[in-house]
Amino acid sequence: MANSKYEYVKDYETPDKLPLDNWIVVRIDGRGFHKFTTKYGFEKPNDKKGMDLMNAAAMAVMTELPDIVISYGISDEYSFVLHESCTLFERRASKLVSTVVSTFTAYYVHLWSQHFPELPLTLPLPTFDGRAVPYPSIKRMRDYLSWRQVDCHINNLYNTTFWALIQLGGLDAKAAEKELAGTLSADKNEILFSRFKINYNNEAEIWKKGSVVFRDYELVEPGASVDETPKMPVNLAEVEISKTQAEKEKKRRAKARITLQHLDIIKDDFWERRPWVLSNKPGQIPKQT
Amino acid sequence: MANSKYEYVKDYETPDKLPLDNWIVVRIDGRGFHKFTTKYGFEKPNDKKGMDLMNAAAMAVMTELPDIVISYGISDEYSFVLHESCTLFERRASKLVSTVVSTFTAYYVHLWSQHFPELPLTLPLPTFDGRAVPYPSIKRMRDYLSWRQVDCHINNLYNTTFWALIQLGGLDAKAAEKELAGTLSADKNEILFSRFKINYNNEAEIWKKGSVVFRDYELVEPGASVDETPKMPVNLAEVEISKTQAEKEKKRRAKARITLQHLDIIKDDFWERRPWVLSNKPGQIPKQT
Amino acid sequence: MANSKYEYVKDYETPDKLPLDNWIVVRIDGRGFHKFTTKYGFEKPNDKKGMDLMNAAAMAVMTELPDIVISYGISDEYSFVLHESCTLFERRASKLVSTVVSTFTAYYVHLWSQHFPELPLTLPLPTFDGRAVPYPSIKRMRDYLSWRQVDCHINNLYNTTFWALIQLGGLDAKAAEKELAGTLSADKNEILFSRFKINYNNEAEIWKKGSVVFRDYELVEPGASVDETPKMPVNLAEVEISKTQAEKEKKRRAKARITLQHLDIIKDDFWERRPWVLSNKPGQIPKQT
Amino acid sequence: MANSKYEYVKDYETPDKLPLDNWIVVRIDGRGFHKFTTKYGFEKPNDKKGMDLMNAAAMAVMTELPDIVISYGISDEYSFVLHESCTLFERRASKLVSTVVSTFTAYYVHLWSQHFPELPLTLPLPTFDGRAVPYPSIKRMRDYLSWRQVDCHINNLYNTTFWALIQLGGLDAKAAEKELAGTLSADKNEILFSRFKINYNNEAEIWKKGSVVFRDYELVEPGASVDETPKMPVNLAEVEISKTQAEKEKKRRAKARITLQHLDIIKDDFWERRPWVLSNKPGQIPKQT
Repeated sequence: MANSKYEYVKDYETPDKLPLDNWIVVRIDGRGFHKFTTKYGFEKPNDKKGMDLMNAAAMAVMTELPDIVISYGISDEYSFVLHESCTLFERRASKLVSTVVSTFTAYYVHLWSQHFPELPLTLPLPTFDGRAVPYPSIKRMRDYLSWRQVDCHINNLYNTTFWALIQLGGLDAKAAEKELAGTLSADKNEILFSRFKINYNNEAEIWKKGSVVFRDYELVEPGASVDETPKMPVNLAEVEISKTQAEKEKKRRAKARITLQHLDIIKDDFWERRPWVLSNKPGQIPKQT
Repeated sequence: MANSKYEYVKDYETPDKLPLDNWIVVRIDGRGFHKFTTKYGFEKPNDKKGMDLMNAAAMAVMTELPDIVISYGISDEYSFVLHESCTLFERRASKLVSTVVSTFTAYYVHLWSQHFPELPLTLPLPTFDGRAVPYPSIKRMRDYLSWRQVDCHINNLYNTTFWALIQLGGLDAKAAEKELAGTLSADKNEILFSRFKINYNNEAEIWKKGSVVFRDYELVEPGASVDETPKMPVNLAEVEISKTQAEKEKKRRAKARITLQHLDIIKDDFWERRPWVLSNKPGQIPKQT
Repeated sequence: MANSKYEYVKDYETPDKLPLDNWIVVRIDGRGFHKFTTKYGFEKPNDKKGMDLMNAAAMAVMTELPDIVISYGISDEYSFVLHESCTLFERRASKLVSTVVSTFTAYYVHLWSQHFPELPLTLPLPTFDGRAVPYPSIKRMRDYLSWRQVDCHINNLYNTTFWALIQLGGLDAKAAEKELAGTLSADKNEILFSRFKINYNNEAEIWKKGSVVFRDYELVEPGASVDETPKMPVNLAEVEISKTQAEKEKKRRAKARITLQHLDIIKDDFWERRPWVLSNKPGQIPKQT
Repeated sequence: MANSKYEYVKDYETPDKLPLDNWIVVRIDGRGFHKFTTKYGFEKPNDKKGMDLMNAAAMAVMTELPDIVISYGISDEYSFVLHESCTLFERRASKLVSTVVSTFTAYYVHLWSQHFPELPLTLPLPTFDGRAVPYPSIKRMRDYLSWRQVDCHINNLYNTTFWALIQLGGLDAKAAEKELAGTLSADKNEILFSRFKINYNNEAEIWKKGSVVFRDYELVEPGASVDETPKMPVNLAEVEISKTQAEKEKKRRAKARITLQHLDIIKDDFWERRPWVLSNKPGQIPKQT
């Protein structure tokens, strides 16, 4: 309605549309979470309640933004993958990033008291920043997620050993760091087992694999569906679908339960059994038993 | 620490540094606030508790991000102005926007129960999106703020009259809209006064002027300080200051009270009496009386 | 060597790297060529000497910039396709565009006198502008070229009929335009044949198909080579090759003759028989007979 | 006219509008000019015919693109400054850069034979690349030009001494380089004078100052015009002028002679006496005598 001689300042906005056909990863990171987790006495190396809160916030983000096909979280970071055909906010980077960050933050703050009832939030509050990265093919996008999951493994093995040396071995941080300098994975596994009787393989999957969030449909038997559903479709955005069809799919997608699991997303198996993640076409709702 | 064959995916991040020497305006907007304010029964045309919450969140953002020199809010939007010499996050747009949006959202959600103790937040939660716009001169940046303040005036006069027609005049929304179609400011003032004995000039400044947030130092007498402090310095980033000096200024800035006022920021007077807003050099802390 | 207090101005350069993995199309267009071709009396609808000069300039560009895998020209425009794995100038848009445009212009001006010995160039000189567009998959890049070739067909059929009406039918431009308004391809073919005994199919390929420039190796029998060379590799940049191998390929590529042909590049056949265009791996040099 | 199912590929073009209110510097650089100047036996340290050709090409560029207010050239590079209010090609970087580069190249190649009649151009031809850099204030833009002119001075003093040591002193390149390592300006002046009786101050201005190209109007007496024409206007784009006025100015600008001079553009004097360079408002055409 309003119209004034000052309106010309709108012309200074610069376009920030992310390139078409690209998978868009919006990654958020906790700001100053080292200090934040110390303030609230988070357990080391991993705090279950803290991660549960991260996961709850991520699931809320996926519920509110159906264009996100999969999310992956470790520590104080979460990556949200938007489908290559996504047209949300005309793919404008600032709108996408700010909406994801705002929604995640809102739920993190709001749900805090459910996860930490005994620890009221005080100022300064927890906040997150974010960025969007475009990946021009399924391979690149999967390599991005593989990068985060390998990071999860390497960091968690290190942290598990580091804190075992301190909590069980009685070392201080400096000594533990020195002990681990230059060690390989095998060395850390050996330290854990020989000194502390810890078999790293028995550690909880949530720490070894990180947290994967996606919509839950009936798994597809690898090989079985090859004819109908291309495992690695060259260009999914291509397939033209009628408005009615799109409407139906939206409803089925909305009905799908969002699930949190801790499993390998580097190998093909995860993706072959859940073709809907890459196709963004809803699968079969699992029968209730 | 982690290093893997997948790390190359970092190369797909694209730079989004905002241009040097530019004032940066980060504006946030409530997402779906029409529905949101209806759900919580916000008063029409303006809800004082709702605006107080917006202002409280904005003041928290300014406290946490000292690079912001002034903020301006109306309705469900808030604009934060970062100084042209700001180097926060290397001026990366996504970091700046996401941090402002996340901080604002965190405080909005966290402080909600203080402003609406009788109305617990339910899902979906309130969220905000944001964008950053660079303005290459003080004039352009001030014109941006003038644009928002003129918008504030035009919208508020319309809304005040519209809701008077409904709440006091017994019209329904459609009839009120029809009544106002094509009217000028003078017409609306006349409707308010002749039919409802409302003198628009007596309406609260918070609705007529919007909310201006800035650091509070001793006002400078217009004209008095002209020799020392250029009213409209050509290039403030230019002035080289020593590290020690910068450290001192940072401390003085941190000590400054952040103030919320409702006044005209279109005319020169506001800016001339508060040279620190444009110079980002802390002024004199007001004497307590 | 030089170093001064002014050197900071370099920081105002903004990065313009084109996204990784994308095919890059640099298209150049003649500036004001309508006026230019009139000035030198180019034949209508098509001038063979003018197109020969365009093609000669394009072949020179391809010789100097081996990262270009294929080029396509019609009228006063030429599109140069850089391979998705291209790292020339770190993929900086302005360097790529300006180098292609400068090289094309240099040859166009330099070779003019060979193609138009009787018509010395006078001021203002012919110039070209350019732009770079990234395409994230082979399909998109081929669709770009198909777009240009369909344009070529549609424009040439129209122009051929338009100028037949004028040159053979005695109409003026306005009447010819009116005659063609709303006609379909079949109508234009019919006009050409029934009124002027022109069978459009017999027109020269250079006008019907445009000009395709690429490196010349032995054609591959469709189907035959499928096992070794993926027809449509998902990600060619992926394949790691040793430095020695790269050096060898560079030499073979340099030896390859650059060929100009006028054929269909919309259908798969062109691409399947010349796998080196998409793979950027040199094929077999044709045996001389 | 043409319209096909492939036309969607146009959506992959990305906007590259340069920011409003910014001065735009398009700098072009000779590609591989070290090799090129060796091939044609350019004189060392400076070749007058070569620089004359550069200057002739630059003057042609300024004639064809009246939005350029000043140009500055040294060696194989030339910088063209577009006025901050320039709207040419909607300020699209690729169009601006490619047009300047193409025009410069066309004239360089075309005028070659006039400057080097005895040396016909052979392949590969001379080419240039280019880039555009936005500067958000007069100060930044002038600092850019100062940077280039300081570079000119430093390089020319070095080169003059280096080649004196070789051509007059009988040293080889390696020995000359070693001799100059770590020397200051005063040292080089001393070497030139004591060993070769060369007073650097007496060297030609074209090499000491570089080449400045601008439109020629009557000089303004410094101080005299201060009241009417702001020396350093805050925002020139601001001033609204009528269409008729703009038309008149365009004609006067077209009539203005483009002049090539070799003078200091670092100090204020140049700019104060030629206010039209910054204002882009045509001045008084000098009276012919």
